[in-house]
Amino acid sequence: MSSTDIKYDALMGRWEPDARGRLMQAAFELYVERGFDETTVAEISEAAGLTERTFFRHFADKREVLFAGAGELHSFLVSAVLDAPASLSPIATVRAAFVESATFFGERPDFARQRQRIIVSSTELQERELIKLANLAAAMAEALRQRGVKDPAASLAAEAGVAAFRVSFERWVGAATNQKLTRIMSDVFDELRSVTAAS
Amino acid sequence: MSSTDIKYDALMGRWEPDARGRLMQAAFELYVERGFDETTVAEISEAAGLTERTFFRHFADKREVLFAGAGELHSFLVSAVLDAPASLSPIATVRAAFVESATFFGERPDFARQRQRIIVSSTELQERELIKLANLAAAMAEALRQRGVKDPAASLAAEAGVAAFRVSFERWVGAATNQKLTRIMSDVFDELRSVTAAS
Repeated sequence: MSSTDIKYDALMGRWEPDARGRLMQAAFELYVERGFDETTVAEISEAAGLTERTFFRHFADKREVLFAGAGELHSFLVSAVLDAPASLSPIATVRAAFVESATFFGERPDFARQRQRIIVSSTELQERELIKLANLAAAMAEALRQRGVKDPAASLAAEAGVAAFRVSFERWVGAATNQKLTRIMSDVFDELRSVTAAS
Repeated sequence: MSSTDIKYDALMGRWEPDARGRLMQAAFELYVERGFDETTVAEISEAAGLTERTFFRHFADKREVLFAGAGELHSFLVSAVLDAPASLSPIATVRAAFVESATFFGERPDFARQRQRIIVSSTELQERELIKLANLAAAMAEALRQRGVKDPAASLAAEAGVAAFRVSFERWVGAATNQKLTRIMSDVFDELRSVTAAS
């Protein structure tokens, strides 16, 4: 079994073998092979054996294929903050939400690693990624305020939490580590506490 | 003396009455009056009594007028991190750099407030702002690594510091507060420590 087989098995486990999944898989392959800028929606649709019309029923544009899971992750995290036990501190609430969300990313970083490589290849995609993360931090801060947390504590807990998540995710995706994402997040949130304690 | 007079006196105190300053002042006035998207480089140049050619000697495009100070701030902060006493912890280093940088923004938030209003009016400008802040955090993390700080501590100190700076700046610009930016930053960095301690 080649590493490519393993990769696609992992993808198929996460995506239903439906139109949406076929479009995503075709898009990722083309983005990696030819580059994001050089790939057209027509080519993605053809590679998936579907029409452009079907593509646009699933995605607003070719960027959105890369952010397909972001909306669900965003909703999940906001709900997790709102539903957390009242006894949790703001940062513990944010931390618990991110740790719970790890299931979104699967066991292995192959898919996330491929996505990351595509994102860093394009300024436009990096900007989109930053906007999504900024919106996520703002939404989590708002959820904390709904729990009665005052500002600046609400904003700081959300922003610092998103920063810790980003750092964790980059470690998971980037390094030659076999550690689980939840484990890395736990270490990074601990380190955030140590680092900021020294101010 | 009208509030407009006060505003322009403040601007003139910060900008030399040269071509660059006149272009910036004209651009800000037009962005506020007509909107960023509706303003052309030709109109800015004309309002400043200069040619488009002069405009493009100073700025790459009409967005860059709003980020004219960002490059200097970036360099200042990176140098401040590199030159800080070796005894300072990573987060104390970042904190001291931001507190020192407060002089960049002047005594009063009028100018920053006007700029903020223009930025939030345009998705394109918000994206540019986020990219600049992300690059700033990456550069400060790199400067910390040059001081011998390991990751993830370097990234976390830089990211959390930039988050605290953003929150401070928004409070300074946004609220009906007369507090100095340095004072707000000091409170917000203290609050960051309390917030993250509770994880």
